[in-house]
Amino acid sequence: MQPLDHIRVVLSHTSHPGNIGATARAMKNMGLSRLVLVNPKHFPDPQAHAMSAGATDVLANAQVVSTLAQGLEGTIFAVAMSARRRELAVTPLWAREAAAELVTAATQGDVALVFGNETAGLSNEELFQCRRWAMIPVNPGFSSLNVAAAVQLMCYELRLAAQNPGQPPVVAGAGLPASHEEVEHLVAHLERAAIASEFLDPASPKRLILRLRRLFSRAGLEKEEVNILRGLLTAFEKKR
Amino acid sequence: MQPLDHIRVVLSHTSHPGNIGATARAMKNMGLSRLVLVNPKHFPDPQAHAMSAGATDVLANAQVVSTLAQGLEGTIFAVAMSARRRELAVTPLWAREAAAELVTAATQGDVALVFGNETAGLSNEELFQCRRWAMIPVNPGFSSLNVAAAVQLMCYELRLAAQNPGQPPVVAGAGLPASHEEVEHLVAHLERAAIASEFLDPASPKRLILRLRRLFSRAGLEKEEVNILRGLLTAFEKKR
Repeated sequence: MQPLDHIRVVLSHTSHPGNIGATARAMKNMGLSRLVLVNPKHFPDPQAHAMSAGATDVLANAQVVSTLAQGLEGTIFAVAMSARRRELAVTPLWAREAAAELVTAATQGDVALVFGNETAGLSNEELFQCRRWAMIPVNPGFSSLNVAAAVQLMCYELRLAAQNPGQPPVVAGAGLPASHEEVEHLVAHLERAAIASEFLDPASPKRLILRLRRLFSRAGLEKEEVNILRGLLTAFEKKR
Repeated sequence: MQPLDHIRVVLSHTSHPGNIGATARAMKNMGLSRLVLVNPKHFPDPQAHAMSAGATDVLANAQVVSTLAQGLEGTIFAVAMSARRRELAVTPLWAREAAAELVTAATQGDVALVFGNETAGLSNEELFQCRRWAMIPVNPGFSSLNVAAAVQLMCYELRLAAQNPGQPPVVAGAGLPASHEEVEHLVAHLERAAIASEFLDPASPKRLILRLRRLFSRAGLEKEEVNILRGLLTAFEKKR
């Protein structure tokens, strides 16, 4: 398996089926094949088929899921694409850097590159499920790229990065990287524990949870670390 | 003026007006504004307007001409995009190298990046009017990029190259580079002289002329060199 075979392109809440088709074409042009659609407005759809210009195999094999968490199952690394800076967010990568990190991580397991809705982009909740986020350099006076154009640029950078992989892995430390689900279970566990301990107001837990996600995201957790943290949480819960 | 302001995007014989609009959007996203349309099938057109997603200024300022030679008037350097290798053609540049050369040349004068028809690409006659030609790295099993996607990739590379110009000019030697018209006049002059001398069969001059174009294209002629060659031709013509 080549690194590109381990890279999923995830489109979240896509409105226009033509963009799904154009994404499939852009992916196949650059040698990628794994498309995941999170709650698409219309799919399958004749417009998607037409705009794929023959990349119908990518559409036929596309996985349709209802949440980003499902789309990220089994991944060890994910990059969210965003056109705007976010409160709380760590420093973004540039497109080219993100491609290099994705290809490097793809030598260790499945990874994902995530694109949001045409108008609204990704929600903060979606963004913080990804380890890193990345921006495409654009004209600040006219910054809104078509989503399929953004996919095209990223898949091009991924193809070039895969041809010239370069640096050693940066996914995590010496240990095995935690999977997406393992981190999600940890976050859920923490949230339950935080509410049970009355540290966290169950009516408005969001900001704290975002901050925790940000921390884990920046750190790049290993499996062993997740196990330790969860063991610790379980111990805390039993104590009371 | 920034280098990007000296770069024309030339679309030759575009069939689908939606691609013209998507090209305008892709250009403006990356900070380019000068669009030239060679004999477009439909322009202006509501589909071009819709697909420009607000880059209507680029469409409104687009220059419509009937031949590529007109579209290249005043340029000192041009790169043709092609998806396939050509008989006679010099070694192609990769997209990223072409962007670096265009940006460098754009510090000395106007330059052009030329894209062909959606189905047929550029003709050999068009290709050899350009100093260099370039390819985008693609999946060899599915290599046909949408023309607006190709424009998007190249404009992205141009934006990055303009942010990080790097190398000294490679357009020509120490002297001023010849303009497109100057080289065209030289080629026409050579053709007349070659036919008059009976070296060239006027019924089938194409292959020789292509080879000459290729030579000049590779060399990157200077103004002074064109003047010398034309003076020499004139002298030969008078001698008989």
